[in-house]
Amino acid sequence: MEFFFDFVSPYAYLASTQIDALAARHGRQVQWKPFLIGVTVLQVMGLKPLMETPLKADYIAHDKSRMAELLGVPIVQRDMRGVNSVAACRAYLWLAREDAGRARQFAHRVFERLWVQGLDITTPADIADACAAAGIEAGPVLAAITTDEAKQALRAAVDEAVARKVFGAPFFFVDGEPIWGVDRLWMLEHWLTHGNWRPASKA
Amino acid sequence: MEFFFDFVSPYAYLASTQIDALAARHGRQVQWKPFLIGVTVLQVMGLKPLMETPLKADYIAHDKSRMAELLGVPIVQRDMRGVNSVAACRAYLWLAREDAGRARQFAHRVFERLWVQGLDITTPADIADACAAAGIEAGPVLAAITTDEAKQALRAAVDEAVARKVFGAPFFFVDGEPIWGVDRLWMLEHWLTHGNWRPASKA
Repeated sequence: MEFFFDFVSPYAYLASTQIDALAARHGRQVQWKPFLIGVTVLQVMGLKPLMETPLKADYIAHDKSRMAELLGVPIVQRDMRGVNSVAACRAYLWLAREDAGRARQFAHRVFERLWVQGLDITTPADIADACAAAGIEAGPVLAAITTDEAKQALRAAVDEAVARKVFGAPFFFVDGEPIWGVDRLWMLEHWLTHGNWRPASKA
Repeated sequence: MEFFFDFVSPYAYLASTQIDALAARHGRQVQWKPFLIGVTVLQVMGLKPLMETPLKADYIAHDKSRMAELLGVPIVQRDMRGVNSVAACRAYLWLAREDAGRARQFAHRVFERLWVQGLDITTPADIADACAAAGIEAGPVLAAITTDEAKQALRAAVDEAVARKVFGAPFFFVDGEPIWGVDRLWMLEHWLTHGNWRPASKA
């Protein structure tokens, strides 16, 4: 199954703390796929950033806290102005070419910087710190993420997300079923358990 | 607890088939509150209609079918062009002033016309048919819904929804907690069971 995420999404962070264990309970593995939600939501869909959408901001602020509590993980409220995930997504893709497990360790440290420690993830120094926390040598990563190859890899990842109509984060595909949102982990669990959408009593 | 709905929302229809039984399992009653999602989403929030939002339409079409299957209720795919719920919402509010139970019967018949039988709900003839199906005399309802009082009642209902930041449908409030979406009935159930957001194992 696939897990599309952007580090800037608090709901993608929450999903990142659950998805591998959930899949493992059903003998599945997860392919993590970074993309830039700013491109899909803001450019392709023509919507506003979540926290600037009228009526929604208070709900989201409260909701991410209670959802974190329900999932038993920490989260901070934070100002996202100036934060972007371009460098972190490029670094993830570069690391994942050689070692998906190492890339995943890096991704967890990036999510934690942003959503647990309340730090930034935007600059080369942030990427270097996240590498260090994941036990990864930072030099080659920092060198890689400014290459045309790394830029092109991220563009391709975003293009794939748009082509597959990934309109939000987290976004999952399991056996071709698209599922949007950390509030739908119960649907993932249902599908992985039953392989159909019949009510649990009849599945 | 409160259930904000608009008849034109397929997810509100799905919620309408579940919410009273869910509440009753926890000894609660539900106050049904119609509003016009077109006003909140299109005018106040400045968003596009769901099915015209790029990337989302295919997902929603598939999702409402599988969600209906999960809930064990029927639903049809239908073209919503030309359908609006102004008359039905006014009729609901007028009926509810005297008898909430009768209004609820009417609401179920309106939802069924639209989302099970694939009929319209927009015209006086549609309202008359829904009244008949609910065992309600149509004449007084049709007379009432063109009055200034009925128009004002719906405006007030929409104003309340906007003031309370009801940005989608279905939208629930339980003990002050706002909860959006039929995909979050599990959160309503959690709250009604535990009265907190701790993980089920520690709640």
